[in-house]
Amino acid sequence: MSAPRGDHLVGILGGMGPAATAAFYAKLVERTPATRDQDHLRVAIWADPTVPDRVGAVLGTGGADPYPAMLAGARHLRALGTTLAVMPCHTAHAFLPDLVRDSGLRFLDMVAETVGQLERTGTSFGGGGGGGGGGGGVGLLGTRATLATGLYQRRLHDARFAVVLPEEPAQVQVDLAIKKVKQGDPVAAGLHLGKAIDAMTERNPSPIVLACTELPLAARYLPEGGTATLLDPTEVLADRVVQECWD
Amino acid sequence: MSAPRGDHLVGILGGMGPAATAAFYAKLVERTPATRDQDHLRVAIWADPTVPDRVGAVLGTGGADPYPAMLAGARHLRALGTTLAVMPCHTAHAFLPDLVRDSGLRFLDMVAETVGQLERTGTSFGGGGGGGGGGGGVGLLGTRATLATGLYQRRLHDARFAVVLPEEPAQVQVDLAIKKVKQGDPVAAGLHLGKAIDAMTERNPSPIVLACTELPLAARYLPEGGTATLLDPTEVLADRVVQECWD
Repeated sequence: MSAPRGDHLVGILGGMGPAATAAFYAKLVERTPATRDQDHLRVAIWADPTVPDRVGAVLGTGGADPYPAMLAGARHLRALGTTLAVMPCHTAHAFLPDLVRDSGLRFLDMVAETVGQLERTGTSFGGGGGGGGGGGGVGLLGTRATLATGLYQRRLHDARFAVVLPEEPAQVQVDLAIKKVKQGDPVAAGLHLGKAIDAMTERNPSPIVLACTELPLAARYLPEGGTATLLDPTEVLADRVVQECWD
Repeated sequence: MSAPRGDHLVGILGGMGPAATAAFYAKLVERTPATRDQDHLRVAIWADPTVPDRVGAVLGTGGADPYPAMLAGARHLRALGTTLAVMPCHTAHAFLPDLVRDSGLRFLDMVAETVGQLERTGTSFGGGGGGGGGGGGVGLLGTRATLATGLYQRRLHDARFAVVLPEEPAQVQVDLAIKKVKQGDPVAAGLHLGKAIDAMTERNPSPIVLACTELPLAARYLPEGGTATLLDPTEVLADRVVQECWD
Protein backbone atom coordinates (compact mmCIF):
# COMPACT_ATOMS: atom_id res chain seq x y z
CA MET A 1 0.00 0.00 0.00
CA SER A 2 1.52 3.29 -1.01
CA ALA A 3 -1.23 5.75 -1.85
CA PRO A 4 -4.99 6.10 -1.74
CA ARG A 5 -6.94 5.63 -4.92
CA GLY A 6 -8.34 9.11 -5.41
CA ASP A 7 -11.53 7.93 -7.01
CA HIS A 8 -12.85 6.35 -3.82
CA LEU A 9 -15.44 7.99 -1.61
CA VAL A 10 -16.08 6.04 1.58
CA GLY A 11 -19.68 6.41 2.75
CA ILE A 12 -20.46 5.84 6.41
CA LEU A 13 -24.12 5.19 7.18
CA GLY A 14 -23.96 6.18 10.81
CA GLY A 15 -25.75 7.69 13.76
CA MET A 16 -26.66 4.27 15.11
CA GLY A 17 -25.44 5.41 17.59
CA PRO A 18 -23.61 8.67 17.04
CA ALA A 19 -20.72 8.08 19.48
CA ALA A 20 -19.98 4.78 17.76
CA THR A 21 -19.96 6.54 14.39
CA ALA A 22 -17.52 9.19 15.62
CA ALA A 23 -15.29 6.48 17.09
CA PHE A 24 -15.37 4.50 13.85
CA TYR A 25 -14.39 7.52 11.80
CA ALA A 26 -11.54 8.27 14.20
CA LYS A 27 -10.33 4.66 13.87
CA LEU A 28 -10.47 4.86 10.10
CA VAL A 29 -8.31 7.99 10.16
CA GLU A 30 -5.88 6.53 12.72
CA ARG A 31 -5.49 3.29 10.78
CA THR A 32 -4.90 4.97 7.43
CA PRO A 33 -1.14 4.99 6.71
CA ALA A 34 -1.13 8.60 5.55
CA THR A 35 1.47 11.19 6.48
CA ARG A 36 -0.39 14.29 5.28
CA ASP A 37 -4.01 15.33 4.89
CA GLN A 38 -4.05 14.84 1.15
CA ASP A 39 -3.26 11.11 1.42
CA HIS A 40 -6.27 10.39 3.63
CA LEU A 41 -9.48 8.92 2.27
CA ARG A 42 -12.40 11.03 1.14
CA VAL A 43 -15.27 10.26 3.50
CA ALA A 44 -18.95 11.17 3.59
CA ILE A 45 -20.94 10.47 6.74
CA TRP A 46 -24.70 10.45 7.03
CA ALA A 47 -25.48 10.22 10.72
CA ASP A 48 -29.18 10.26 11.50
CA PRO A 49 -29.61 9.20 15.13
CA THR A 50 -33.37 9.72 14.83
CA VAL A 51 -33.64 6.41 12.96
CA PRO A 52 -36.14 4.40 15.05
CA ASP A 53 -34.77 1.78 17.43
CA ARG A 54 -33.28 -1.14 15.53
CA VAL A 55 -33.39 -3.62 18.41
CA GLY A 56 -37.15 -3.37 18.85
CA ALA A 57 -37.72 -3.65 15.11
CA VAL A 58 -35.56 -6.75 14.74
CA LEU A 59 -37.09 -8.44 17.78
CA GLY A 60 -40.60 -7.52 16.67
CA THR A 61 -41.34 -5.89 20.00
CA GLY A 62 -42.88 -2.83 18.44
CA GLY A 63 -41.88 0.65 17.49
CA ALA A 64 -41.55 2.35 14.14
CA ASP A 65 -39.77 0.69 11.22
CA PRO A 66 -36.19 2.00 11.00
CA TYR A 67 -35.67 0.81 7.44
CA PRO A 68 -37.07 3.80 5.48
CA ALA A 69 -34.73 6.21 7.28
CA MET A 70 -31.78 3.87 6.81
CA LEU A 71 -32.52 3.56 3.10
CA ALA A 72 -32.89 7.33 2.78
CA GLY A 73 -29.43 7.71 4.32
CA ALA A 74 -27.93 5.13 1.97
CA ARG A 75 -29.44 6.95 -0.98
CA HIS A 76 -27.94 10.24 0.24
CA LEU A 77 -24.52 8.56 0.36
CA ARG A 78 -25.03 7.15 -3.11
CA ALA A 79 -26.02 10.56 -4.50
CA LEU A 80 -22.79 12.00 -3.09
CA GLY A 81 -20.80 9.50 -5.13
CA THR A 82 -20.00 6.86 -2.52
CA THR A 83 -18.00 4.00 -3.99
CA LEU A 84 -17.72 1.90 -0.83
CA ALA A 85 -20.15 2.01 2.09
CA VAL A 86 -19.98 0.79 5.66
CA MET A 87 -22.49 0.78 8.50
CA PRO A 88 -20.91 0.80 11.97
CA CYS A 89 -23.94 -0.78 13.70
CA HIS A 90 -24.23 -4.55 14.07
CA THR A 91 -27.95 -4.63 14.79
CA ALA A 92 -28.63 -2.70 11.59
CA HIS A 93 -26.84 -5.42 9.63
CA ALA A 94 -30.12 -7.36 9.79
CA PHE A 95 -31.23 -4.90 7.10
CA LEU A 96 -28.03 -5.01 5.04
CA PRO A 97 -29.25 -7.28 2.21
CA ASP A 98 -32.28 -5.04 1.70
CA LEU A 99 -30.09 -1.90 1.83
CA VAL A 100 -27.72 -3.30 -0.78
CA ARG A 101 -30.60 -4.25 -3.06
CA ASP A 102 -32.56 -1.00 -2.67
CA SER A 103 -29.69 1.52 -2.62
CA GLY A 104 -27.36 -0.04 -5.16
CA LEU A 105 -24.45 0.81 -2.88
CA ARG A 106 -21.56 -1.57 -2.39
CA PHE A 107 -21.25 -2.25 1.36
CA LEU A 108 -18.52 -4.01 3.30
CA ASP A 109 -20.37 -6.40 5.65
CA MET A 110 -18.92 -5.90 9.15
CA VAL A 111 -20.09 -9.33 10.33
CA ALA A 112 -18.60 -11.16 7.36
CA GLU A 113 -15.36 -9.20 7.61
CA THR A 114 -15.03 -9.96 11.32
CA VAL A 115 -15.56 -13.68 10.84
CA GLY A 116 -13.14 -13.55 7.92
CA GLN A 117 -10.57 -11.95 10.20
CA LEU A 118 -11.11 -14.71 12.77
CA GLU A 119 -10.57 -17.33 10.09
CA ARG A 120 -7.34 -15.68 8.94
CA THR A 121 -5.94 -15.10 12.41
CA GLY A 122 -7.60 -17.91 14.34
CA THR A 123 -4.35 -19.32 15.62
CA SER A 124 -3.29 -15.98 17.07
CA PHE A 125 -6.25 -16.37 19.36
CA GLY A 126 -5.03 -19.77 20.46
CA GLY A 127 -7.43 -21.69 18.27
CA GLY A 128 -8.75 -21.32 14.78
CA GLY A 129 -11.36 -23.29 12.95
CA GLY A 130 -12.20 -26.86 13.80
CA GLY A 131 -13.58 -26.53 17.27
CA GLY A 132 -13.35 -22.93 18.26
CA GLY A 133 -11.02 -20.03 18.85
CA GLY A 134 -9.74 -20.60 22.35
CA GLY A 135 -10.54 -23.55 24.51
CA GLY A 136 -14.19 -22.58 24.67
CA GLY A 137 -14.83 -21.10 21.23
CA VAL A 138 -15.54 -17.54 20.17
CA GLY A 139 -17.48 -15.37 22.60
CA LEU A 140 -20.14 -13.04 21.27
CA LEU A 141 -21.46 -9.94 23.03
CA GLY A 142 -24.05 -7.75 21.33
CA THR A 143 -27.61 -6.56 21.49
CA ARG A 144 -30.35 -9.13 21.95
CA ALA A 145 -31.37 -8.31 18.40
CA THR A 146 -27.94 -9.01 16.91
CA LEU A 147 -27.83 -12.34 18.74
CA ALA A 148 -31.43 -13.16 17.75
CA THR A 149 -30.73 -12.68 14.06
CA GLY A 150 -28.03 -15.33 14.22
CA LEU A 151 -25.97 -13.35 11.70
CA TYR A 152 -22.72 -13.98 13.56
CA GLN A 153 -23.58 -17.49 14.74
CA ARG A 154 -24.30 -18.77 11.24
CA ARG A 155 -21.06 -17.42 9.84
CA LEU A 156 -19.05 -18.62 12.81
CA HIS A 157 -20.56 -22.08 12.58
CA ASP A 158 -19.88 -22.17 8.82
CA ALA A 159 -16.25 -21.39 9.67
CA ARG A 160 -16.30 -24.21 12.25
CA PHE A 161 -15.95 -21.98 15.27
CA ALA A 162 -17.82 -22.92 18.43
CA VAL A 163 -19.78 -19.94 19.78
CA VAL A 164 -20.20 -18.90 23.38
CA LEU A 165 -23.22 -16.69 23.99
CA PRO A 166 -23.88 -14.76 27.20
CA GLU A 167 -26.34 -16.19 29.67
CA GLU A 168 -29.16 -13.92 30.84
CA PRO A 169 -27.33 -12.16 33.71
CA ALA A 170 -24.42 -11.31 31.39
CA GLN A 171 -26.79 -10.13 28.66
CA VAL A 172 -28.42 -7.79 31.17
CA GLN A 173 -24.97 -6.28 31.80
CA VAL A 174 -24.36 -5.95 28.04
CA ASP A 175 -27.70 -4.18 27.61
CA LEU A 176 -26.74 -1.76 30.40
CA ALA A 177 -23.27 -1.15 28.94
CA ILE A 178 -24.77 -0.23 25.57
CA LYS A 179 -27.40 1.98 27.20
CA LYS A 180 -24.79 3.81 29.27
CA VAL A 181 -22.64 4.56 26.21
CA LYS A 182 -25.69 5.96 24.46
CA GLN A 183 -26.36 8.07 27.57
CA GLY A 184 -22.85 9.51 27.36
CA ASP A 185 -21.50 7.61 30.39
CA PRO A 186 -18.78 5.28 29.07
CA VAL A 187 -17.24 4.90 32.54
CA ALA A 188 -20.39 3.27 33.94
CA ALA A 189 -20.61 1.30 30.69
CA GLY A 190 -17.13 -0.09 31.30
CA LEU A 191 -18.18 -1.49 34.67
CA HIS A 192 -21.17 -3.26 33.14
CA LEU A 193 -19.12 -4.64 30.27
CA GLY A 194 -16.55 -5.87 32.76
CA LYS A 195 -19.23 -7.87 34.57
CA ALA A 196 -20.44 -9.37 31.31
CA ILE A 197 -16.90 -10.36 30.33
CA ASP A 198 -16.23 -11.85 33.76
CA ALA A 199 -19.33 -14.00 33.43
CA MET A 200 -18.23 -15.11 29.96
CA THR A 201 -14.63 -15.93 30.82
CA GLU A 202 -15.73 -18.71 33.15
CA ARG A 203 -16.45 -20.57 29.90
CA ASN A 204 -13.07 -19.60 28.43
CA PRO A 205 -13.97 -18.11 25.04
CA SER A 206 -11.19 -16.43 23.05
CA PRO A 207 -11.55 -13.95 21.62
CA ILE A 208 -14.73 -12.29 22.80
CA VAL A 209 -16.19 -10.35 19.86
CA LEU A 210 -17.56 -6.93 20.84
CA ALA A 211 -20.44 -7.29 18.39
CA CYS A 212 -22.13 -4.00 19.17
CA THR A 213 -20.40 -0.78 18.11
CA GLU A 214 -21.03 0.83 21.50
CA LEU A 215 -19.06 -1.88 23.33
CA PRO A 216 -15.53 -0.82 22.19
CA LEU A 217 -16.29 2.60 23.72
CA ALA A 218 -17.20 0.88 27.00
CA ALA A 219 -14.07 -1.29 26.73
CA ARG A 220 -11.90 1.83 27.09
CA TYR A 221 -13.09 1.94 30.70
CA LEU A 222 -12.89 -1.71 31.70
CA PRO A 223 -11.75 -2.33 35.27
CA GLU A 224 -8.09 -3.31 35.43
CA GLY A 225 -7.11 -6.91 35.87
CA GLY A 226 -9.14 -8.51 33.11
CA THR A 227 -7.33 -11.00 30.91
CA ALA A 228 -9.93 -11.71 28.23
CA THR A 229 -8.88 -11.25 24.62
CA LEU A 230 -11.32 -8.91 22.90
CA LEU A 231 -11.93 -8.40 19.19
CA ASP A 232 -13.31 -5.07 17.99
CA PRO A 233 -15.13 -5.49 14.66
CA THR A 234 -14.96 -1.75 13.96
CA GLU A 235 -11.16 -2.05 13.83
CA VAL A 236 -11.49 -4.95 11.43
CA LEU A 237 -13.88 -2.92 9.29
CA ALA A 238 -11.66 0.17 9.29
CA ASP A 239 -8.67 -1.92 8.20
CA ARG A 240 -10.69 -3.50 5.41
CA VAL A 241 -11.77 -0.08 4.15
CA VAL A 242 -8.14 1.02 4.00
CA GLN A 243 -7.17 -2.20 2.19
CA GLU A 244 -9.92 -1.64 -0.38
CA CYS A 245 -9.07 1.99 -1.01
CA TRP A 246 -5.29 1.93 -1.15
CA ASP A 247 -3.18 0.60 -3.97
CA MET B 1 -32.80 22.92 26.58
CA SER B 2 -34.98 19.83 26.56
CA ALA B 3 -35.03 18.34 23.09
CA PRO B 4 -33.43 18.75 19.69
CA ARG B 5 -35.32 20.51 16.96
CA GLY B 6 -35.88 17.69 14.49
CA ASP B 7 -35.71 19.94 11.47
CA HIS B 8 -32.02 20.69 11.92
CA LEU B 9 -29.29 19.00 9.92
CA VAL B 10 -25.81 19.99 11.05
CA GLY B 11 -23.36 19.99 8.17
CA ILE B 12 -19.66 19.57 8.92
CA LEU B 13 -17.31 20.69 6.16
CA GLY B 14 -14.36 18.63 7.28
CA GLY B 15 -11.31 16.70 6.30
CA MET B 16 -9.04 19.67 7.00
CA GLY B 17 -7.58 17.62 8.65
CA PRO B 18 -9.48 14.36 9.06
CA ALA B 19 -8.42 13.63 12.65
CA ALA B 20 -9.60 17.08 13.70
CA THR B 21 -12.94 16.44 12.00
CA ALA B 22 -13.39 13.12 13.79
CA ALA B 23 -12.50 14.76 17.10
CA PHE B 24 -14.94 17.61 16.48
CA TYR B 25 -17.76 15.20 15.71
CA ALA B 26 -16.98 13.22 18.87
CA LYS B 27 -17.06 16.45 20.90
CA LEU B 28 -20.40 17.43 19.39
CA VAL B 29 -21.85 14.05 20.38
CA GLU B 30 -20.33 14.17 23.88
CA ARG B 31 -21.57 17.69 24.52
CA THR B 32 -25.12 17.02 23.35
CA PRO B 33 -27.33 16.49 26.43
CA ALA B 34 -29.10 13.47 24.95
CA THR B 35 -29.85 10.26 26.81
CA ARG B 36 -30.75 8.10 23.81
CA ASP B 37 -29.78 7.95 20.14
CA GLN B 38 -32.98 9.55 18.93
CA ASP B 39 -32.33 12.80 20.85
CA HIS B 40 -28.99 13.40 19.17
CA LEU B 41 -28.55 15.79 16.28
CA ARG B 42 -28.72 14.73 12.67
CA VAL B 43 -25.29 15.31 11.18
CA ALA B 44 -23.84 15.15 7.69
CA ILE B 45 -20.07 15.25 7.22
CA TRP B 46 -18.24 15.94 4.01
CA ALA B 47 -14.60 15.18 4.70
CA ASP B 48 -12.36 15.65 1.68
CA PRO B 49 -8.74 15.64 2.89
CA THR B 50 -7.56 15.97 -0.70
CA VAL B 51 -8.44 19.70 -0.62
CA PRO B 52 -5.16 21.42 -1.48
CA ASP B 53 -3.11 22.86 1.38
CA ARG B 54 -4.82 25.89 2.89
CA VAL B 55 -1.76 27.36 4.56
CA GLY B 56 0.16 27.74 1.31
CA ALA B 57 -2.86 29.24 -0.42
CA VAL B 58 -3.48 31.84 2.28
CA LEU B 59 0.19 32.79 2.51
CA GLY B 60 0.49 32.95 -1.26
CA THR B 61 3.44 30.59 -1.23
CA GLY B 62 2.11 28.51 -4.07
CA GLY B 63 0.17 25.34 -4.58
CA ALA B 64 -3.28 24.68 -5.97
CA ASP B 65 -6.28 26.75 -4.94
CA PRO B 66 -8.24 24.90 -2.24
CA TYR B 67 -11.39 26.96 -2.68
CA PRO B 68 -13.11 25.04 -5.49
CA ALA B 69 -12.97 21.79 -3.51
CA MET B 70 -14.19 23.54 -0.35
CA LEU B 71 -17.09 25.08 -2.22
CA ALA B 72 -17.97 21.73 -3.79
CA GLY B 73 -18.13 20.24 -0.31
CA ALA B 74 -20.32 23.06 0.97
CA ARG B 75 -22.66 22.53 -1.95
CA HIS B 76 -22.87 18.80 -1.18
CA LEU B 77 -23.84 19.67 2.39
CA ARG B 78 -26.44 22.12 1.15
CA ALA B 79 -27.91 19.55 -1.25
CA LEU B 80 -28.32 17.15 1.67
CA GLY B 81 -30.47 19.70 3.47
CA THR B 82 -27.96 21.23 5.89
CA THR B 83 -29.55 23.95 7.99
CA LEU B 84 -26.45 24.90 9.99
CA ALA B 85 -22.87 24.39 8.84
CA VAL B 86 -19.52 24.43 10.61
CA MET B 87 -15.95 24.07 9.40
CA PRO B 88 -13.54 22.71 12.02
CA CYS B 89 -10.44 24.27 10.43
CA HIS B 90 -9.25 27.72 11.41
CA THR B 91 -7.03 28.32 8.40
CA ALA B 92 -9.97 27.61 6.09
CA HIS B 93 -11.92 30.39 7.80
CA ALA B 94 -10.03 32.78 5.54
CA PHE B 95 -12.43 31.53 2.86
CA LEU B 96 -15.57 31.63 5.01
CA PRO B 97 -17.13 34.83 3.61
CA ASP B 98 -16.74 33.47 0.08
CA LEU B 99 -18.16 30.10 1.11
CA VAL B 100 -21.21 31.69 2.71
CA ARG B 101 -21.80 33.83 -0.36
CA ASP B 102 -21.29 31.08 -2.92
CA SER B 103 -22.94 28.14 -1.13
CA GLY B 104 -25.87 29.91 0.50
CA LEU B 105 -25.22 27.85 3.63
CA ARG B 106 -25.54 29.36 7.08
CA PHE B 107 -22.22 28.82 8.88
CA LEU B 108 -21.29 29.33 12.50
CA ASP B 109 -17.97 31.21 12.43
CA MET B 110 -15.57 29.41 14.79
CA VAL B 111 -13.36 32.48 15.21
CA ALA B 112 -16.26 34.79 16.04
CA GLU B 113 -17.78 32.24 18.41
CA THR B 114 -14.50 31.78 20.23
CA VAL B 115 -13.95 35.49 20.72
CA GLY B 116 -17.59 35.77 21.80
CA GLN B 117 -16.96 33.09 24.40
CA LEU B 118 -13.91 35.01 25.65
CA GLU B 119 -16.00 38.15 25.98
CA ARG B 120 -18.69 36.30 27.94
CA THR B 121 -16.31 34.43 30.23
CA GLY B 122 -13.37 36.80 30.28
CA THR B 123 -13.33 37.12 34.03
CA SER B 124 -13.09 33.37 34.48
CA PHE B 125 -9.75 33.65 32.77
CA GLY B 126 -8.67 36.29 35.23
CA GLY B 127 -9.27 39.19 32.93
CA GLY B 128 -11.87 40.13 30.37
CA GLY B 129 -11.97 43.04 28.01
CA GLY B 130 -10.12 46.23 28.67
CA GLY B 131 -6.56 45.16 28.58
CA GLY B 132 -6.48 41.47 28.00
CA GLY B 133 -7.50 38.14 29.44
CA GLY B 134 -4.87 37.34 32.03
CA GLY B 135 -2.05 39.62 32.95
CA GLY B 136 -0.56 39.38 29.51
CA GLY B 137 -3.59 39.14 27.23
CA VAL B 138 -4.94 36.29 25.18
CA GLY B 139 -2.42 33.91 23.66
CA LEU B 140 -2.93 32.66 20.14
CA LEU B 141 -1.42 29.50 18.66
CA GLY B 142 -2.27 28.48 15.11
CA THR B 143 -0.88 28.03 11.64
CA ARG B 144 1.21 30.82 10.16
CA ALA B 145 -1.68 31.34 7.76
CA THR B 146 -4.30 31.78 10.48
CA LEU B 147 -2.09 34.30 12.23
CA ALA B 148 -1.28 36.07 8.94
CA THR B 149 -4.95 36.59 8.10
CA GLY B 150 -5.42 38.48 11.36
CA LEU B 151 -8.91 36.98 11.69
CA TYR B 152 -8.49 36.38 15.42
CA GLN B 153 -6.39 39.44 16.13
CA ARG B 154 -8.95 41.86 14.64
CA ARG B 155 -11.82 40.38 16.62
CA LEU B 156 -9.78 40.22 19.82
CA HIS B 157 -8.68 43.83 19.44
CA ASP B 158 -12.27 44.87 18.75
CA ALA B 159 -13.20 43.17 22.00
CA ARG B 160 -10.36 45.03 23.76
CA PHE B 161 -8.24 41.99 24.44
CA ALA B 162 -4.49 42.26 24.18
CA VAL B 163 -3.06 39.49 22.01
CA VAL B 164 0.11 37.50 22.60
CA LEU B 165 1.51 35.88 19.48
CA PRO B 166 4.25 33.23 19.43
CA GLU B 167 7.74 34.30 18.54
CA GLU B 168 9.51 32.40 15.78
CA PRO B 169 10.95 29.54 17.90
CA ALA B 170 7.50 28.86 19.41
CA GLN B 171 5.86 29.05 15.96
CA VAL B 172 8.29 26.41 14.72
CA GLN B 173 7.10 24.15 17.55
CA VAL B 174 3.44 24.84 16.65
CA ASP B 175 4.13 23.97 13.01
CA LEU B 176 5.72 20.70 14.13
CA ALA B 177 2.85 19.89 16.50
CA ILE B 178 0.31 20.33 13.70
CA LYS B 179 2.41 18.30 11.28
CA LYS B 180 2.80 15.45 13.79
CA VAL B 181 -0.96 15.25 14.38
CA LYS B 182 -1.51 15.07 10.63
CA GLN B 183 1.12 12.31 10.50
CA GLY B 184 -0.82 10.35 13.11
CA ASP B 185 1.66 10.93 15.94
CA PRO B 186 -0.19 12.98 18.59
CA VAL B 187 2.32 11.98 21.29
CA ALA B 188 5.19 13.71 19.48
CA ALA B 189 2.80 16.56 18.73
CA GLY B 190 2.15 16.99 22.44
CA LEU B 191 5.85 17.47 23.12
CA HIS B 192 6.11 20.18 20.47
CA LEU B 193 2.97 21.92 21.69
CA GLY B 194 4.34 21.82 25.22
CA LYS B 195 7.46 23.65 24.10
CA ALA B 196 5.38 26.29 22.32
CA ILE B 197 3.21 26.81 25.39
CA ASP B 198 6.27 27.03 27.65
CA ALA B 199 7.70 29.75 25.43
CA MET B 200 4.39 31.62 25.51
CA THR B 201 3.79 31.41 29.25
CA GLU B 202 6.86 33.52 29.95
CA ARG B 203 4.68 36.38 28.74
CA ASN B 204 1.76 35.25 30.91
CA PRO B 205 -1.16 35.06 28.46
CA SER B 206 -4.40 33.53 29.71
CA PRO B 207 -6.02 31.72 28.14
CA ILE B 208 -4.00 30.43 25.24
CA VAL B 209 -6.36 29.80 22.33
CA LEU B 210 -5.59 26.59 20.42
CA ALA B 211 -6.48 28.23 17.13
CA CYS B 212 -5.72 25.26 14.92
CA THR B 213 -8.01 22.23 15.13
CA GLU B 214 -5.06 19.84 15.27
CA LEU B 215 -3.74 21.43 18.48
CA PRO B 216 -6.43 20.09 20.87
CA LEU B 217 -5.44 16.59 19.72
CA ALA B 218 -1.82 17.38 20.59
CA ALA B 219 -2.94 18.87 23.92
CA ARG B 220 -4.14 15.42 25.03
CA TYR B 221 -0.47 14.46 25.21
CA LEU B 222 1.04 17.53 26.83
CA PRO B 223 3.84 16.79 29.28
CA GLU B 224 2.66 16.95 32.88
CA GLY B 225 3.31 19.98 34.98
CA GLY B 226 2.03 22.70 32.68
CA THR B 227 -0.17 25.32 34.26
CA ALA B 228 -1.30 27.32 31.25
CA THR B 229 -5.04 27.78 30.76
CA LEU B 230 -6.00 26.59 27.29
CA LEU B 231 -9.12 27.35 25.29
CA ASP B 232 -10.26 24.88 22.64
CA PRO B 233 -12.36 26.64 19.97
CA THR B 234 -13.78 23.31 18.76
CA GLU B 235 -15.43 22.88 22.17
CA VAL B 236 -16.86 26.38 21.90
CA LEU B 237 -18.15 25.61 18.42
CA ALA B 238 -19.70 22.28 19.47
CA ASP B 239 -21.50 23.97 22.36
CA ARG B 240 -22.83 26.68 20.07
CA VAL B 241 -24.15 24.08 17.62
CA VAL B 242 -26.03 22.38 20.45
CA GLN B 243 -27.41 25.73 21.64
CA GLU B 244 -28.63 26.55 18.13
CA CYS B 245 -30.25 23.18 17.55
CA TRP B 246 -31.98 22.54 20.88
CA ASP B 247 -35.10 24.20 22.18
